[in-house]
Amino acid sequence: MTKLTAEAAGTFAIAPTPFHDDGRIDDKSIDRLTDFYAEVGCDGVTVLGILGEAPKLDGAEAEAVARRFVKRANNMQVIVGVSAPGFATMGSLAHASMDAGAAGVMIAPPPHLRTDEQITGYFRQAAEAIGDDIPWVLQDYPLTLTVVMTPTVIRKIVMDNSSCVMLKHEDWPGLEKISALRGFQKDGSLRPLSILTGNGGLFLDFEMERGADGAMTGYAFPELLIDVVRLSKAGRRDAAHDLFDAHLPLIRYEQQPGAGLAVRKYVLQKRGVIASSAQRKPGSGISATAKAEVDYLLARVARVDRRASLEPQSSAAG
Amino acid sequence: MTKLTAEAAGTFAIAPTPFHDDGRIDDKSIDRLTDFYAEVGCDGVTVLGILGEAPKLDGAEAEAVARRFVKRANNMQVIVGVSAPGFATMGSLAHASMDAGAAGVMIAPPPHLRTDEQITGYFRQAAEAIGDDIPWVLQDYPLTLTVVMTPTVIRKIVMDNSSCVMLKHEDWPGLEKISALRGFQKDGSLRPLSILTGNGGLFLDFEMERGADGAMTGYAFPELLIDVVRLSKAGRRDAAHDLFDAHLPLIRYEQQPGAGLAVRKYVLQKRGVIASSAQRKPGSGISATAKAEVDYLLARVARVDRRASLEPQSSAAG
Amino acid sequence: MTKLTAEAAGTFAIAPTPFHDDGRIDDKSIDRLTDFYAEVGCDGVTVLGILGEAPKLDGAEAEAVARRFVKRANNMQVIVGVSAPGFATMGSLAHASMDAGAAGVMIAPPPHLRTDEQITGYFRQAAEAIGDDIPWVLQDYPLTLTVVMTPTVIRKIVMDNSSCVMLKHEDWPGLEKISALRGFQKDGSLRPLSILTGNGGLFLDFEMERGADGAMTGYAFPELLIDVVRLSKAGRRDAAHDLFDAHLPLIRYEQQPGAGLAVRKYVLQKRGVIASSAQRKPGSGISATAKAEVDYLLARVARVDRRASLEPQSSAAG
Amino acid sequence: MTKLTAEAAGTFAIAPTPFHDDGRIDDKSIDRLTDFYAEVGCDGVTVLGILGEAPKLDGAEAEAVARRFVKRANNMQVIVGVSAPGFATMGSLAHASMDAGAAGVMIAPPPHLRTDEQITGYFRQAAEAIGDDIPWVLQDYPLTLTVVMTPTVIRKIVMDNSSCVMLKHEDWPGLEKISALRGFQKDGSLRPLSILTGNGGLFLDFEMERGADGAMTGYAFPELLIDVVRLSKAGRRDAAHDLFDAHLPLIRYEQQPGAGLAVRKYVLQKRGVIASSAQRKPGSGISATAKAEVDYLLARVARVDRRASLEPQSSAAG
Repeated sequence: MTKLTAEAAGTFAIAPTPFHDDGRIDDKSIDRLTDFYAEVGCDGVTVLGILGEAPKLDGAEAEAVARRFVKRANNMQVIVGVSAPGFATMGSLAHASMDAGAAGVMIAPPPHLRTDEQITGYFRQAAEAIGDDIPWVLQDYPLTLTVVMTPTVIRKIVMDNSSCVMLKHEDWPGLEKISALRGFQKDGSLRPLSILTGNGGLFLDFEMERGADGAMTGYAFPELLIDVVRLSKAGRRDAAHDLFDAHLPLIRYEQQPGAGLAVRKYVLQKRGVIASSAQRKPGSGISATAKAEVDYLLARVARVDRRASLEPQSSAAG
Repeated sequence: MTKLTAEAAGTFAIAPTPFHDDGRIDDKSIDRLTDFYAEVGCDGVTVLGILGEAPKLDGAEAEAVARRFVKRANNMQVIVGVSAPGFATMGSLAHASMDAGAAGVMIAPPPHLRTDEQITGYFRQAAEAIGDDIPWVLQDYPLTLTVVMTPTVIRKIVMDNSSCVMLKHEDWPGLEKISALRGFQKDGSLRPLSILTGNGGLFLDFEMERGADGAMTGYAFPELLIDVVRLSKAGRRDAAHDLFDAHLPLIRYEQQPGAGLAVRKYVLQKRGVIASSAQRKPGSGISATAKAEVDYLLARVARVDRRASLEPQSSAAG
Repeated sequence: MTKLTAEAAGTFAIAPTPFHDDGRIDDKSIDRLTDFYAEVGCDGVTVLGILGEAPKLDGAEAEAVARRFVKRANNMQVIVGVSAPGFATMGSLAHASMDAGAAGVMIAPPPHLRTDEQITGYFRQAAEAIGDDIPWVLQDYPLTLTVVMTPTVIRKIVMDNSSCVMLKHEDWPGLEKISALRGFQKDGSLRPLSILTGNGGLFLDFEMERGADGAMTGYAFPELLIDVVRLSKAGRRDAAHDLFDAHLPLIRYEQQPGAGLAVRKYVLQKRGVIASSAQRKPGSGISATAKAEVDYLLARVARVDRRASLEPQSSAAG
Repeated sequence: MTKLTAEAAGTFAIAPTPFHDDGRIDDKSIDRLTDFYAEVGCDGVTVLGILGEAPKLDGAEAEAVARRFVKRANNMQVIVGVSAPGFATMGSLAHASMDAGAAGVMIAPPPHLRTDEQITGYFRQAAEAIGDDIPWVLQDYPLTLTVVMTPTVIRKIVMDNSSCVMLKHEDWPGLEKISALRGFQKDGSLRPLSILTGNGGLFLDFEMERGADGAMTGYAFPELLIDVVRLSKAGRRDAAHDLFDAHLPLIRYEQQPGAGLAVRKYVLQKRGVIASSAQRKPGSGISATAKAEVDYLLARVARVDRRASLEPQSSAAG
C-alpha cells in the first residue's frame, strides 16, 4: 500500500468495528465492510477511530483489526487511529499497522491539553514516539475531545512535524478554519496539507467549496460523500447541493453524539454490509421508535437517491 | 399578560437583542422585532436567553430590554431569561420582569453543577430565590452549559417545584429524552409539563412526533417553526417533513455554535426586521464568504418556500 | 487613595463579604473588618473576589460594598474584583469603584476561554472596556477558573496592556511560573510587574523566595502573611519558615475548595472581626466536627503564635 | 497472597513505576522499592495508579510490572490499578494481575461520566467486566478525574457490587465525606467498607479521626503515614499531629499536581530506593531550584524526624 501524502484527496470512510452480538470481533463483517467501501469507490478507509470503538479493544485486538482491514483493502489506503493514553501503546500500534501495510496513522490530542504550548508540545512528542517515517493525520475534533486548536496552532504542528500530512477537520463550526488554513498556504506560511472533513458530513457541501480535499467520515452512505466530493470538484455546485440536501435529514440524524453510531450500524446492517449492529459495552442501543424514524428518513431519501431504497432487504436483514 | 402554565404550546421565538453598530441597545429594532414575531403568528417570545447576549447587558439594561419587549408584545407571552451567577441578580430581574407583565422566566443551571443532588438542590434554591409565585422554565442545554440532567433529575426538579411549568428541551441528542419524560407522565410519576424544543430547530420534525408541545428557538424564519408545529399537530407528517427539509440546510447552517448568532442577525437584518446585525463585544462577525453562503441557501429555500425570497430587499438592507 | 502601580508589594488581604444571618450585607462588619486589616498592618485589601461571594451580589449591592470598603480603608489601597460575564457590568463596577477611590480593579478570565489567542484577546477587550486609565490586576487561578495561562501568555497580556500592573498568582503548582516571569524580566522581555500570591498562602514561604512581591490571599490570620513577607524580604529564611510552618496545618485546612470560606468566616467570627459567619445561598456551612477541628488547630498554632489564642473569646463569640 | 477484603487497614504505599533514564522499566528498582515498602512496615502496595504513570505503559509492560511487584511483595498485599479506556484492556490486566497473586484491583471512573446514573452504571459494567470474584477498590479522585461522586452514589456503587471492598478516598475537601459514609454504616444503609485515604496524605491527621482505616498514598516517607495511622488508632491524638505537622511542609510540597511525582521520585532516589528519578514522556522534570527547596524541607523535617536526614547520601545519589 502506498504511504499517505499531503496530496491525498477524495473520500475516506470511517469504518465502524463490527462485533457479534456477544461482543466478539466479527472478522467476516470486517471483510464485507471493506469490500463494500471498495465497491462504492472510496479512496481510503480509516479504522479504529472514535467511531470505531477503538478504546474498547485491547492491544492485541486493535492490531488484529487493523491488520484485517489492511489486508483486505487492496487498492484503498488504510489509516489506523492510534490515539492512546500513552506513547508506548501508540507506538506499538503504529508500527504494527505500518508493518501490516497501512498508509498512515491518525492521532487525536488527549483531552487534558489546554494551552497552545501543551498542544504543540504533545504532537512533537507523539511524532517522535511513532518515528518520523510514519505519515500521520492530525485529528481536530473539539466537540468530543475538548481540545481547541487555532489555525495558528495547526500550522505550527504541521510545520514542526514533516510527517504530518493530513488534517482530519471536524471543528464545529469549521468553515472559516478551512479558509484560514488555505489562506496560510496562499501566503506561503503553511506547506501543502491534505484536508479531509468529518463531522458526519454535516457541512460537506460548503467544506468542499472552502477548499477541503474530500471527506473522511462515517455516514452510512459513503456513496453520497463520494458524489458530493466529485460534483463539487467538477464545479457542479447546484447538483452537489441538490444531492447533499436530499441526504441531509439522515446525515443530521446520524450526527447525534453517542446515538449516531447506533444509527450507522443499524443502517449498515440494513444494507447487508455488517451482520450485527451490536456495540461493545458500554454502548448505546437504538430504540424501536428511532429505528422507525431512520426507516422513514431512508424512504424519503430514496425518492431522490435510489441507493437508499432498502425496504425489500430490510425485512430480511433488519 | 397571562402567566405561563404547563399548558403552553406552539412557537416561542428566542429573540436576539438588537444593538446599534456602536453597541448601544436598539429600542426601535426591539419594537420591530416584537411586531414581526406577532405578525407571523408566534405564541410567545423568549428574551435575554443565551442567544440574546444577556450576560453582556448590565442589570439596568437587562431590565429595560425585558420591559420593552413585554410592553410591545400585546397578546404574545414573554418569557425572560434570568439566569445569573447569583440569586440576587436573578431575583431582581425576575421581579422586575414580572412586574412589567412578563408571563414567566427561564433559568439555566450554572456550569459548575455536576451531581444530581447539586442540580436538584440548585433549582430548589433558585425557585425559592425568585419566589414560588413566578412560573419558570427549566433550560436543559448540556452542549453549551455542560450540565447533564437525566430524565429522572428533570422529573425531580419538576415535582419539587410547583412553579416549574415548562422544559426548554435542547439536549443533543434529545429525542429519547422527550419520550422518557412523556413516559413518566403516562405512568403517573410526572405532572403536566410543557415541553418546547430548542437546538435551533434541528430536530423539530421528530421532536414534535415524540411529544413536544412546540418550538422555542431562534431560527430566523419562525414561520417555518410555526408551520411545522401546526402540520405535525394536525397529523400531516409528510407535509411537515417536506417543509422542514426545505429549510434544513439553512437551519443547520444557523445552528453552528457561536457563529450561528451572526447568521441569524444577518438574516433578520436582510428581512428588514432589525437595523443592524451588530453584536456586543466579545462577539463573532460573519465573513463575506459566509454571507454569500447564507444568500445561496436562502435562494435555495425560496424555491420551495417563497418567504425566503429576500433578494430584492437584500440589496437595500444587506 | 493612590492608584495601584507595578511597585505594589506587601500583603493585601482578600476580604470576605460579611452577611447577617438572613443574607443581608452587614455594613458594620465591613467597617470592623477593614479596621482590623489596617490595625494588623495590611498594605491593601481586595474586595469582591471569588472568596468575597461577589457573584451573589447584584450590581447595586456590589457597588455599595466596594464603596464602603474604600471609604473605610484610609491608607490601605483597595482593589475591587470586577470580573463579570459581560463587559457592561464589568465597566460599571470598575468606574463606580474608581470614582469612590479604589486603587485598582481585578479581572479573572471567564471559564470558557481555551486557546492562547482567546485569552489574550479577552483581556485586550476587557482593558478597553474599563478604559486604559484604570490599573488592573490579572488573576491567574486555573484550579477554580479552568483557564490555563502560560508564562508566555501572561507576558503577552502584560505587554499588550499598559494598565495591567499586577499578577494575582495562584496557579497550582506555581513556583516555576514565578521564576519564569522573573526570568522574562531579567532578559528584558517583560516590563515591571507586581506579583502577589494567593492559593490561601499554602506556598507563600517559597513564593517569596522565588521572587513574589507579597501575598494577596484570605487566610484568617493576615498577621502571619505580613510576617512571612517581612521576614522573607529581610533574608531571615529560617525564621520565615518557622513561623509559616506553625500556621501551615491551619492554612492547609482553610485552603479546601468551597469549604475554606466557611472556615475563614468561622475564624474571623471567633476573632470578633465579623458578627456572623453566614454565607449567602448557595453556600457551604461548617459542621460541629469541623469547628472542633479548627479549634484544635488554633490551639496548636497558639503554642507558637499567641495571636491564635482565641479560646476565651470563642466561648462568647462562637 | 490473600485477597483484599473490607477489613483492610493500615498503610498501602502508592508505588511509582521506576524507569531508567532512557525510559525503559527498571526492574531492579521495582524490587528495591518493594523491599523498602516491606522493611518500613507497609501493609500493602498499590501499583499502576495515576502516580505510577500507568497510561504510559503498553499492555504487556503493565502486566510485567504488576507481576514483578506481586512476586516480590511477600506478605504485603498488592493492589493493581486497572483503569483503562475500555473493559477489554481492564479485564485483561485484572485477570493477569490476580493470576500472578495480586490481592485486588483498583478502578477509577473515566472522565466523561457526569450524572449519578452514568457513574453507577459504569461501575456495574466494570465489575461485570472483570468478573465478580475479583475484589476491587473504588477510586474517588475528582480533582484529577473530574468525576464527582456524592456519598449517596458511593453507597449505591458499594451496595450494587459485592466485590467492591474498599474506597480510595481522595476527594478534596473530603473530611465530611468520610463522616457521611461512616454515618451510613451506623444507620445500616451501607455494608462494611475499608476506607483508605489519598491526596498525598495532606489531611491524613483528620481523616483518621473521621474514621478512615488508613492511608493509601505516595508520600516519599511512608514511615510517616504508618506512624500517623498507628498513633491515631492508639488514640494518641497530639502525638499523631506533632509528627504529622513536622512533615506537613514536605507533604504539601509533594502534593502539587503534576510536579509532585518529580518530587517524590527525587526523594526516593535520594533515599537510595530507586536508581533514577526519570519519568517517561510526557513527564515533568524538577528544576535545580526545586531540588534545593526539597533538600531544605528535608533538613527541616529531619530536626524532628531523623529518618528525613538524607544529606550524606544525597551528595552521592543526588
